[in-house]
Amino acid sequence: MAITPGPLLQQVNTPADLKKIPEDKLHEFCDELRQYIIDVVSVHGGHFAASLGVVELTTALHYVYNTPEDLLVWDVGHQAYGHKIITGRRDRFETNRKYNGLSGFPKIAESEYDTFGVGHSSTSISAALGMAIAAKYKGEKDRKVVAVIGDGSMTAGMAFEAMNHAGVSNTDMLIILNDNGIGIDPNVGALKEYLTDITVSPKYNKFKDDVWNALNKLPVGKSISKSIAHKLAEGLKGMLNSNSNLFESLKLRYFGPIDGHNITKLVDTLKDLKQIGGPKILHVITTKGKGYALAEKDQTKWHAPGLFDKVTGEIIKKTFETPQPPKYQDVFGKTIIELAEKNDRIFGITPAMPSGSSLKYMMEQMPNRALDVGICEQHAVTLSAGMATQGLRVFCNIYSSFMQRAYDQAVHDVAIQQLPVIFCLDRAGLVGDDGPTHHGCYDIAYFRCIPNMIVSAPMNESELRNLMYTAQLKKNEFPFVIRYPRGEGVMPEWRTPMEEIPVGKGRRLKEGKDIAILSFGHPGNFAASAIRTLHQDGILPGHYDLRFAKPLDEALLHEACQKYPKLVTVEDGTVIGGIGAAVLEFMAKHGYKNEVRILGIPDRLVEHGTPKELHRECGYDAEGIITAVREMMREKITVTTEGFSSVS
Amino acid sequence: MAITPGPLLQQVNTPADLKKIPEDKLHEFCDELRQYIIDVVSVHGGHFAASLGVVELTTALHYVYNTPEDLLVWDVGHQAYGHKIITGRRDRFETNRKYNGLSGFPKIAESEYDTFGVGHSSTSISAALGMAIAAKYKGEKDRKVVAVIGDGSMTAGMAFEAMNHAGVSNTDMLIILNDNGIGIDPNVGALKEYLTDITVSPKYNKFKDDVWNALNKLPVGKSISKSIAHKLAEGLKGMLNSNSNLFESLKLRYFGPIDGHNITKLVDTLKDLKQIGGPKILHVITTKGKGYALAEKDQTKWHAPGLFDKVTGEIIKKTFETPQPPKYQDVFGKTIIELAEKNDRIFGITPAMPSGSSLKYMMEQMPNRALDVGICEQHAVTLSAGMATQGLRVFCNIYSSFMQRAYDQAVHDVAIQQLPVIFCLDRAGLVGDDGPTHHGCYDIAYFRCIPNMIVSAPMNESELRNLMYTAQLKKNEFPFVIRYPRGEGVMPEWRTPMEEIPVGKGRRLKEGKDIAILSFGHPGNFAASAIRTLHQDGILPGHYDLRFAKPLDEALLHEACQKYPKLVTVEDGTVIGGIGAAVLEFMAKHGYKNEVRILGIPDRLVEHGTPKELHRECGYDAEGIITAVREMMREKITVTTEGFSSVS
Repeated sequence: MAITPGPLLQQVNTPADLKKIPEDKLHEFCDELRQYIIDVVSVHGGHFAASLGVVELTTALHYVYNTPEDLLVWDVGHQAYGHKIITGRRDRFETNRKYNGLSGFPKIAESEYDTFGVGHSSTSISAALGMAIAAKYKGEKDRKVVAVIGDGSMTAGMAFEAMNHAGVSNTDMLIILNDNGIGIDPNVGALKEYLTDITVSPKYNKFKDDVWNALNKLPVGKSISKSIAHKLAEGLKGMLNSNSNLFESLKLRYFGPIDGHNITKLVDTLKDLKQIGGPKILHVITTKGKGYALAEKDQTKWHAPGLFDKVTGEIIKKTFETPQPPKYQDVFGKTIIELAEKNDRIFGITPAMPSGSSLKYMMEQMPNRALDVGICEQHAVTLSAGMATQGLRVFCNIYSSFMQRAYDQAVHDVAIQQLPVIFCLDRAGLVGDDGPTHHGCYDIAYFRCIPNMIVSAPMNESELRNLMYTAQLKKNEFPFVIRYPRGEGVMPEWRTPMEEIPVGKGRRLKEGKDIAILSFGHPGNFAASAIRTLHQDGILPGHYDLRFAKPLDEALLHEACQKYPKLVTVEDGTVIGGIGAAVLEFMAKHGYKNEVRILGIPDRLVEHGTPKELHRECGYDAEGIITAVREMMREKITVTTEGFSSVS
Repeated sequence: MAITPGPLLQQVNTPADLKKIPEDKLHEFCDELRQYIIDVVSVHGGHFAASLGVVELTTALHYVYNTPEDLLVWDVGHQAYGHKIITGRRDRFETNRKYNGLSGFPKIAESEYDTFGVGHSSTSISAALGMAIAAKYKGEKDRKVVAVIGDGSMTAGMAFEAMNHAGVSNTDMLIILNDNGIGIDPNVGALKEYLTDITVSPKYNKFKDDVWNALNKLPVGKSISKSIAHKLAEGLKGMLNSNSNLFESLKLRYFGPIDGHNITKLVDTLKDLKQIGGPKILHVITTKGKGYALAEKDQTKWHAPGLFDKVTGEIIKKTFETPQPPKYQDVFGKTIIELAEKNDRIFGITPAMPSGSSLKYMMEQMPNRALDVGICEQHAVTLSAGMATQGLRVFCNIYSSFMQRAYDQAVHDVAIQQLPVIFCLDRAGLVGDDGPTHHGCYDIAYFRCIPNMIVSAPMNESELRNLMYTAQLKKNEFPFVIRYPRGEGVMPEWRTPMEEIPVGKGRRLKEGKDIAILSFGHPGNFAASAIRTLHQDGILPGHYDLRFAKPLDEALLHEACQKYPKLVTVEDGTVIGGIGAAVLEFMAKHGYKNEVRILGIPDRLVEHGTPKELHRECGYDAEGIITAVREMMREKITVTTEGFSSVS
């Protein structure tokens, strides 16, 4: 049953419709837009609090600017639900983040109003500046460009790089700093403190006025010499007008801070700013979760709360009769504490994901040994490397797709120096609803080619614990990657005793005949399930859990290649350059000619959906493995003295 | 014949020796150190002007701090020659950057004084902060940590990320901003302008003093009310003490600017700063090339001038009787202009490498269509993506190893959105003297796994021109990588007419028998040379130039696999996950069982040396290819109805 929007929102299909609403009715429109987001997200899920926080800003932007001719770039995109609803997607909004439905993020292919696809943070200023430079070059004088970026995203280096360029770019672009003091978890760092200073402290907030007023009242000519007064005034002017502010140091003209929930003030300010040339920044203060009291109070919980009863605020949880397996992230979050209790060299680092990585448990229990450094993957990795030079064993927890942000640091600062940083790559593989920007598809390929790296993946919770235990042992002082997926594992009783896994040692899970499955990480469970079904057909595949993409377990691979003419590899990563390729490289080196089928993420973008739907689509769930094995087994096997060969 | 250092320098083997020199003799020591660098680099080559600029700073740091217990981290490391000479490596300094000699950069494995290996920019603050946090955690109260970073490196985002953390870190670390206004090319951006402001403008330079003096002279109580004076003073104090400055906005206590060539002032200042707790920054003004007049005058030329006559300043160039092939970078730099003259959508972007990429030619001729954006690979890529959304065709030129810095941007902002940014990866493959931090080993593997990417490499100058021509055609609107090596090509007459190469189309260069060589990019020339020699043995290899790692020329590969039982792949990239793996993946998909040998960069760090030495070491120069082919041909070939198989 479709959810009915309020009467004003019903009339708005595009920003042109929005512009027909009189200014004094805009607050009503905002109320309806906010309510509609609450109504839909409470029953369909998705990101919640961020979009509530920018209802007025979104409305004001589309009201004042001439979108899509004027170009609006959202950073990250968690907060773009209002934007989507206003720009022609209201009626499809209930499909948000569902398989074949709307993307949870702005996306060029979805709408002409989505000028730039986002998902990862801090790209908006660069993208918008590129658009502004292009517009200028093409002589499009009326085209305005606006980037909307949160204060959390502002801490990532690329935002600074972009501002450093924007400030001298001589374009008219406007940066809107949506300052709500929080990303997913509360923001940290000097910038956050600075923004708080200029926002809340009267010393800064009304500073300009006070000083100017005081200056005007100086009795110049009476008892103060003109030269002193002149010196003072000149000095102050320089300071107040150009570099008195972090942003003005970067040659961005600074406006604000203004209340981001006052729609009238926003509309008026944006109208003014449209007339002002040059690069500039408007500092807008908003409250994440605005208008939904519980969300305002616990913003982290309400970032993406799942389904909930919008009246009581009760989160709707599935109930189970039997104990369920934990999330991999919680196994990480609790195991690191167990390890740290015994090894005082262990540290935990997360760039802005204390909740998502579950490092928060350690941050609470061992606050001097676990740090959230904010959105700054690059710094997080090289900081960990610096700590490693001093003998600490850092577990640096970064989502697989965000690790791409610190690839050079992992190569240049960790691997080349052979420093023993332990990278725990959460959200490896297909992550589900967040879609292609967040899928952790590439890490096997992009780390396997780097010398000195150990690249591992646990098949279950116990294996994750064992790999974590192994990684921190003194004898394994190497860069050590442990990748594991988003979501639940398979072991309700997960807190098994930890034991060492020799580096580069896989395991034989099942003896079989004719064909073997070589799996890496969690998809080994899909393989195990496939094997149970195949047994009913009389097909008896062997099963190896490789555990390490690097170094490979060569003894195990010799065994597999010699015993089974047909091999299927299964991984939660790209079929290009991953575990499949590793097996083929091994075979080429040793002259094996087995038939090999590589299952994994195909060479195209995989959109959003549940992980289950996506694994199926990509053909490496149990069903896909069964199909692949059956197809391969249809081909006749011949054994010659020179090895195996097969004829279809 | 060894170069003799001056009498004071002769006595200094370690910083302990340096400390024995009386303070009033330090300027003499600095003169000798500077002269020694000039003497050695003029005859042995290497980076030049950067180390001259920090002679006094280097001396002062080792004089005041207790290295190696105190931890000194150099950013980039171009400038660390003085440091190397002072810290036990004077007598080996003539081996600098030579095969098996000293590294041109700080390197942990080389000396306990090299606390962190560098090469890429902007890592020092993160690494040093990691060390400072570790020291604090371990209770090492006396250990000081100092990062020395140039103003050019300061523009890269990770330096900002690190400062954002350092400012709230409650560690004693000192950041020294070595401000010389230039990286390799002159710095650009708002930060550079800001630093110039606070350095040269009297408005800022003496600002604090002036304002304080003026305030003190206010006749409070006479004709100014206390409340006005108080307001003024309070406001100003807040501004002057905490946030009046970009760095103080980030909660770093700011000192300076001071003259970086005044050794006495430096020593005094550092002694003072050692006593001051908390995170802080010292702004030091230096002149790159200081003390060698020509270098001071043309700092870009003298960044790494090659060998020169130290008296006349004449650069020693090899002379040739016949015309020599151009550098690939110049073919890029001149071809982009030819293309841009015909296609007004073309833009050129370089992050801080206008000279190294040769984009400088276009910047001179078409200043509104070619931009140096400074050291900020991440921004450069997403800026290009933003421009691409508006229909521009950007050639974004980034060295292969620096591309690692913008990997996420290439994936997330370009490939996922299928935006037609053209990445020209200069310095792909083994770069030579700069060593492992700069080798461009990984790009084939790290880009091949990304959907929508076209990954190509030219075998020669003409092919580079054709690939550039092809990439900008309207029909090829895809992310398009063109990788080519540092140094010269093979065609003295390189300015050939440009023609389209169909995307994914390789070429057959030579028909042969029994064995074929599949090469990618410039190493195809090594293969061609190997084939000429092999012909004399009666071995007749076929030769294919693949041109595209992605999409593969499947027709060509079918031909090769069907015609030649044995295949050798050759690439200037890692043997893991590269072209070799691509061929194996193709074979697995189609059931080919050819014998394959993969030649390329092995799975270990390759140190520095000339490219020739390194290609030999890695076994993929002509010699290496010949050896591989001969070994494979020793194995007997049998042809069966089911295809080829071979028995050793």
